[in-house]
Amino acid sequence: MSYTAPVKDLLFNMAHLAELDSLTQIPAFADAGLDTAQAVLEECAKLCQDVIAPLNHAGDKNPSSWADGQVTTTPGFKEAFRQYVEGGWQGLVHPTEFGGQGLPKVIAAACQELVNSANLSFALCPLLTDGAIEALLTAGSDELKTRYIPKMIDGSWTGSMNLTEPQAGSDLALVRTRAEPQGDGTYKVFGTKIFITYGEHDMAENIVHLVLARVPGAPAGVKGISLFVVPKFLVNGDGSLGARNDVHCVSIEHKLGIKASPTAVLQFGDHGGAVGYLVGEENRGLEYMFIMMNAARYGVGVQGLALSERAYQQAVAYAKDRVQSRPVDGSQPGAATIIHHPDVRRMLMTMRALTEGCRAMASVAAAAYDRTHAAGDKQAQAFYEFLVPLVKGYSTEASHEVTSLGVQIHGGMGFIEETGAAQHYRDAKILTIYEGTTAIQANDLVGRKTLRDGGQYARSIAALVEATELELAQGGEAAHAVRANLSHARQAYLAVVDYMAEQGKSNPNAVFAGSVPYLMLAGNLVAGWQLARSLLVAEKELAAGQDAAFMQAKITTARFYAEHILPRTAALRDAVLNGAGSALALPLEAF
Amino acid sequence: MSYTAPVKDLLFNMAHLAELDSLTQIPAFADAGLDTAQAVLEECAKLCQDVIAPLNHAGDKNPSSWADGQVTTTPGFKEAFRQYVEGGWQGLVHPTEFGGQGLPKVIAAACQELVNSANLSFALCPLLTDGAIEALLTAGSDELKTRYIPKMIDGSWTGSMNLTEPQAGSDLALVRTRAEPQGDGTYKVFGTKIFITYGEHDMAENIVHLVLARVPGAPAGVKGISLFVVPKFLVNGDGSLGARNDVHCVSIEHKLGIKASPTAVLQFGDHGGAVGYLVGEENRGLEYMFIMMNAARYGVGVQGLALSERAYQQAVAYAKDRVQSRPVDGSQPGAATIIHHPDVRRMLMTMRALTEGCRAMASVAAAAYDRTHAAGDKQAQAFYEFLVPLVKGYSTEASHEVTSLGVQIHGGMGFIEETGAAQHYRDAKILTIYEGTTAIQANDLVGRKTLRDGGQYARSIAALVEATELELAQGGEAAHAVRANLSHARQAYLAVVDYMAEQGKSNPNAVFAGSVPYLMLAGNLVAGWQLARSLLVAEKELAAGQDAAFMQAKITTARFYAEHILPRTAALRDAVLNGAGSALALPLEAF
Repeated sequence: MSYTAPVKDLLFNMAHLAELDSLTQIPAFADAGLDTAQAVLEECAKLCQDVIAPLNHAGDKNPSSWADGQVTTTPGFKEAFRQYVEGGWQGLVHPTEFGGQGLPKVIAAACQELVNSANLSFALCPLLTDGAIEALLTAGSDELKTRYIPKMIDGSWTGSMNLTEPQAGSDLALVRTRAEPQGDGTYKVFGTKIFITYGEHDMAENIVHLVLARVPGAPAGVKGISLFVVPKFLVNGDGSLGARNDVHCVSIEHKLGIKASPTAVLQFGDHGGAVGYLVGEENRGLEYMFIMMNAARYGVGVQGLALSERAYQQAVAYAKDRVQSRPVDGSQPGAATIIHHPDVRRMLMTMRALTEGCRAMASVAAAAYDRTHAAGDKQAQAFYEFLVPLVKGYSTEASHEVTSLGVQIHGGMGFIEETGAAQHYRDAKILTIYEGTTAIQANDLVGRKTLRDGGQYARSIAALVEATELELAQGGEAAHAVRANLSHARQAYLAVVDYMAEQGKSNPNAVFAGSVPYLMLAGNLVAGWQLARSLLVAEKELAAGQDAAFMQAKITTARFYAEHILPRTAALRDAVLNGAGSALALPLEAF
Repeated sequence: MSYTAPVKDLLFNMAHLAELDSLTQIPAFADAGLDTAQAVLEECAKLCQDVIAPLNHAGDKNPSSWADGQVTTTPGFKEAFRQYVEGGWQGLVHPTEFGGQGLPKVIAAACQELVNSANLSFALCPLLTDGAIEALLTAGSDELKTRYIPKMIDGSWTGSMNLTEPQAGSDLALVRTRAEPQGDGTYKVFGTKIFITYGEHDMAENIVHLVLARVPGAPAGVKGISLFVVPKFLVNGDGSLGARNDVHCVSIEHKLGIKASPTAVLQFGDHGGAVGYLVGEENRGLEYMFIMMNAARYGVGVQGLALSERAYQQAVAYAKDRVQSRPVDGSQPGAATIIHHPDVRRMLMTMRALTEGCRAMASVAAAAYDRTHAAGDKQAQAFYEFLVPLVKGYSTEASHEVTSLGVQIHGGMGFIEETGAAQHYRDAKILTIYEGTTAIQANDLVGRKTLRDGGQYARSIAALVEATELELAQGGEAAHAVRANLSHARQAYLAVVDYMAEQGKSNPNAVFAGSVPYLMLAGNLVAGWQLARSLLVAEKELAAGQDAAFMQAKITTARFYAEHILPRTAALRDAVLNGAGSALALPLEAF
């Protein structure tokens, strides 16, 4: 169950798909070239492989535990977190003025993949802290920023995001937690928040809770939500820790997966009120939260492909080791390792192709983010925003398939918890749920990203794909095979975009009955498109005599994706175009 | 988490798809008409709903435990098993001369669904006992039959199947357990068996282990395997229990799911040898085991749809209760129950359509079994044998999708173990593995069921589907929609069968790289075909004024299946026809 960081594939994507070289033209990223990326990734790989990965199975067997309001994390987590923050990894993407490294997201996200592959439960703590930092950077006052961000970057404190309440899961309009102004600029916060990841733990001295709550007289619904900082310990003027604030962890959940990461129920204000500090302006909390959430959604997409990579590596190792049955072609007289069996090969290739496709998609998305934020590139912004629901939705749904195949390749041994394959399968299930379910990603794709401009931007994605098809037409045999499948998938996608645009206003139920199939189709297409671009690069590199084995494998993987995964788009198209009626026809009482 | 047996749907299938009326023309089943079926199912439903289902979640929280060679099952299991056997349920399908009821499989399998929906872990004990009875009926001497079968039918004793060894999972050629003849007709058995379901427990006084082992001088490979009865306690001449036999449970596994069902490691012969009795002839064990395994494979397929049904019911209940977000069509000013949201509806319909499709397929398969065994119908035999890998492979793979959607519909609550949705997701994962993985079902479908006669029988299935298409052409609007999709799926299937037949001899690797996609395509088609037949019936019944709500729901479900599930066959076809090259091209060292 060891883990080897796929540094080479990540660097290939950065160099050839995300075009890191062109990113270094932006002054802020002048030093963030391929050499830097490689050095950073190799350093990160060491920490992940040697320190964080070995704690993954231990965290599952011996999860975080709660007693008297305190949460004790798995032995080893605290020390690993120390090494993580001391290495500067928490600040990778954050501004240098607060102690961060100011690296582009395209490099930071690659590191994020490694940490998540190594240990998803562990990685959630830095992920949530990133979100809290992001929220303060977006909307916090200078005082809040200087007081909290450096301590979160150096790992003295961590962050948490407090959105969900028992009656308000996906629907934040239902949030009831209230914040009462105290006249001195502070507020007192009262309410219950659930599903708070790392809402309580022992890995840092303080926890900076970012909390959605309503001020008195706030409008109903999502327009009446404000965002507050509620630290676990109050912070004195000199930055030292003061009194314990009135926020308490009353329990943690018993979960299907990511067991080492504590999921807290937090009670605010049971003993007089938790002191909170407003972030930005009153009633604009949802807006700030959304900025933070977009980063977190991208991050969860990366978790999906990270988990897929880990499951793939474990399945490969097992398939190369386990001896069972003779090869069907009679090439060996006795039993062979199961990687010789065609169906095991097909499963491994499915895992590999989905993982590499999602990784490639995440890489180009991150580069678009960087071009948006460091250079104000509007085109890149539209591209990034279109891709976020695909990175989140498609990569996490794919992780279900990949981790399930990982168990399947292990046969009966996969069902035994000691083997570790089942943990990935259990861990993966949260990824399509938190930070917005797949349906919520699909709503975003349909509503904000497609219908808002009548499908125009969505169609422009197809035009980009078509440009790649033209290049493929100049390529070799594999390129031609990929081109045909990519072209069919693009046409399926366009048919769905047209349908969405046509039905958008008149028939919202039909449109939203097809939203998830549309998302899966779009994600499938974009991932396959990026692998097609990879194939074009690999053919050129191969012709130039570069790294033949790697390039040949890239071509095979891209072709496998095109021949096995892209064809799924036809059924998704059919479901959208023809299936809304039957999806919605059954009367409620017939269920 | 209550459970309601879908008696009406089961009776609909029996009456209209499996044609129970025509089955009663066979003398052995003269009394097994629809009235009998209804009475039996309603009785079974009571036991399952009231006694067995309430133990399901308890079994997951408080699984079987091992201490000093003894296994203690979950509190309540022993008493429930008592009620089960006292009700005569263990003997449902077995011959009356041994105390069974002699009912047709089409009725017994329906009952089996209910027990498995109620509690998969519980149901495994009777399932394994059925297998052991089957093996003895097939190949046991009269003495073995009269000594063991009545006690297994009355539930005093249970059965177990001992195939797997650490080095021999799917590949029984590697079995090493040995049996030494003692000169008195008995043998002494030595070896280790793993993954033995209910190999040790406290629910009955004795356990009849059916064990694969090699006699001295037996040929290597699968042709040198013999089958033995090794009882936990020896049986005296008068049928009373004698000495403890030398078979001991040294541990049970810590598993992803079906936790209440003990999965034993059994050690045979560590203290001088376990006394065993040969079943049938030496070296013919695999042959006998295969007969038993075919029954068990069908049974596991039923487990798949049973689990799907349970997950569906739980998801429906949650979706009707959970309030979250406004309807997208603005039909309600405030938040609605989530069943109003189109994507939740789509997920529920997917769960429902897959479950009903697999149930319909299982029902016609069972009737074919009955026509084979009670009337020697050769055509029915071919049909049954073709369907077994589909019932097993497709229904269990479908259960992954259905149980995953079940968790998804619960959102964050689905990830919390207390909710119970996650248990179904965990339990389902074993179903594609035990009694032969999906790949092994696919090998059976390709090898024995397709290539052996050059694809002739497989093509005849398509002809049957085509006949249904002709009938659909006479039907209403829904029938026409279903016909178009069914026709495409049939053509995809035929293209794959032709490919298999053509490549079978020359290119076994390519054929077996496509075996699972072929199985999934065939299973999808046959389930969709049976729902299409259901639709034809429902249209007629509706026209006749029968049970409008039920019939209308059947039509909607069949149409949903045709519009959302059948189109998946195109991608499966493409993967088979074009995808073998890329599936197999990557050199081993590139993984």
